[in-house]
Amino acid sequence: MITIEIKAPYLIFLGEETRKTYAKTGSGIVDWRPELCKGQLNLIENGLDLGLPRMSVEEAAAAGIKSLVIGTASVGGGIPDQWLETFENALLAGLDIVGGVHKKLNDIPRLVEAAKKSGSKLIDVRVPPANIPVGTGRKRTGKRVLMVGTDCAVGKKYTALAMERDMRKIGLNADFRASGQTGIMIAGRGIPIDAVVCDFLAGAAELLSPDNDADHWDVIEGQGGIFHPGYSPVSMGLLIGSQPDAFVVCHEAGRTEIEEWDNFPLPTIEQVIERTVSLGSLTNPNIKCVGVSINTSNLGESERQDYLNDLSKRLGLPCVDPLIMGTDAIIEHMLG
Amino acid sequence: MITIEIKAPYLIFLGEETRKTYAKTGSGIVDWRPELCKGQLNLIENGLDLGLPRMSVEEAAAAGIKSLVIGTASVGGGIPDQWLETFENALLAGLDIVGGVHKKLNDIPRLVEAAKKSGSKLIDVRVPPANIPVGTGRKRTGKRVLMVGTDCAVGKKYTALAMERDMRKIGLNADFRASGQTGIMIAGRGIPIDAVVCDFLAGAAELLSPDNDADHWDVIEGQGGIFHPGYSPVSMGLLIGSQPDAFVVCHEAGRTEIEEWDNFPLPTIEQVIERTVSLGSLTNPNIKCVGVSINTSNLGESERQDYLNDLSKRLGLPCVDPLIMGTDAIIEHMLG
Repeated sequence: MITIEIKAPYLIFLGEETRKTYAKTGSGIVDWRPELCKGQLNLIENGLDLGLPRMSVEEAAAAGIKSLVIGTASVGGGIPDQWLETFENALLAGLDIVGGVHKKLNDIPRLVEAAKKSGSKLIDVRVPPANIPVGTGRKRTGKRVLMVGTDCAVGKKYTALAMERDMRKIGLNADFRASGQTGIMIAGRGIPIDAVVCDFLAGAAELLSPDNDADHWDVIEGQGGIFHPGYSPVSMGLLIGSQPDAFVVCHEAGRTEIEEWDNFPLPTIEQVIERTVSLGSLTNPNIKCVGVSINTSNLGESERQDYLNDLSKRLGLPCVDPLIMGTDAIIEHMLG
Repeated sequence: MITIEIKAPYLIFLGEETRKTYAKTGSGIVDWRPELCKGQLNLIENGLDLGLPRMSVEEAAAAGIKSLVIGTASVGGGIPDQWLETFENALLAGLDIVGGVHKKLNDIPRLVEAAKKSGSKLIDVRVPPANIPVGTGRKRTGKRVLMVGTDCAVGKKYTALAMERDMRKIGLNADFRASGQTGIMIAGRGIPIDAVVCDFLAGAAELLSPDNDADHWDVIEGQGGIFHPGYSPVSMGLLIGSQPDAFVVCHEAGRTEIEEWDNFPLPTIEQVIERTVSLGSLTNPNIKCVGVSINTSNLGESERQDYLNDLSKRLGLPCVDPLIMGTDAIIEHMLG
């Protein structure tokens, strides 16, 4: 299977960070995959505490940790010089270094040299694997549910992870499939779909959810939005390559315009459903919407219930805020 | 403007080729841009004759030729060793080398070194320019007509070039905009859209037809097909980034399946029109189909007329074979 692969367990690297909001990657991994996180490394005394044992690189190596994962972002997405000694030592101690920041690990000669010396790997999760083929459209075995959105940043990754969790809880055979950098670091594998050359985009999406058991569900992280003036081609490629049986529309309550794109009104949920069905039918004629996931953080408690009830009545679909009520209602509808 | 730029005039390099069908790039450039082609270079005595003066690299440089353009493809898309001496001499004589074969000129150390020495350039037209931005969806000035297809290889490039020719003939201000390698070599500029990272695909399409005079038409080469299981995301990105006022559907008479993709029936022309309008409306609500271009090479003379007449009646649109009758009928409908 051609995807990025990260070796567990992880040492979460937090640099000089003290604020959780600047360590979303690290805290996301700890939230969703605590079993993979064996330690954290802070470069300062009173650094952010993710609740993991604090370890040096040497202690991590001795504890059998396989990867140092950069869990924080520096200003500007770079890799500050003062991190390099730690990374070099980690490489020489046999750990891989995993990064999702803009600056590529493989562009830093000092790290490339240390990796070469030790045989450890520098894994840039923003860089797609090589040799992705063109999409075939061939029908694959197993079941797939894809997150789609009215826009970017409306909770697609969160919803997919919550669905995986809730499906596994009731004994279903389900795997989250990561299509973006943070998702890949959480899942330990995946393909950064938006970084793939567009001729191979549908093919990359096909690789992301390969043939599987008949009762297996891939829960696929979505990207962009099918009405997005910049990113809709990415959403379309992910859709036709995923050939999903089911999809969930993700939306943020109160948003009315495509974020950061002036003059593009947000599509309605109905429009997103209609277009996703019509485009997705190319590779799966049975595609259907099975629910709606709403980020209601802008609403008060009573508003929230009214909003979700009204929406559910209007659409005839389960509508949930996954952060508050989980995704059981969507899963039940999907299986029913 | 961020596009590939090729300096004219050209020396068309034909290697050891004797057959025109293996020199489609070279003969395409001579057919559509004879004014840019000042010479041809054959490595053998009885090589293919494109009707240009035969020149050595030295003669070409003395004649003011700026670029050696590889007009033929070797088996497998490589660059045979026996071509390298000629290319090296051309670089040292001050010519750029322009290639569209799979093997990249910039991956051949001997050529990279010669280019560095002389200041000449190695231009791989399959490699997009750097720093392409994300698509904005911003409305641009000027008019645009985009070729779309029921499939790949149905005459989109030919139709666009024929429209440019026929529009210029009646005094219209029109420019062919190349989105693929051969088109780029013909036009001397453009962006290989299918090689762009998908996050920047719509942005690349926006660069291809920048702001222009109110009466100016960009005639944009299409890619893929909006119902194609591998390439439809490319078609969608080109569509929304081009924000075309008008489009022409290109089709090959008699084709019933997506070529090389088993089990995918060809969409009808009506389906392509409907989907192109619905997707294209995102960035241009006034988009409309202005005609249909048919490759009728599989039909006999009388069949052809019946086929085009029937289709025209069915669709209420001008339907032409551009190779035989030009594109005047489409242009008239587009302007009216």
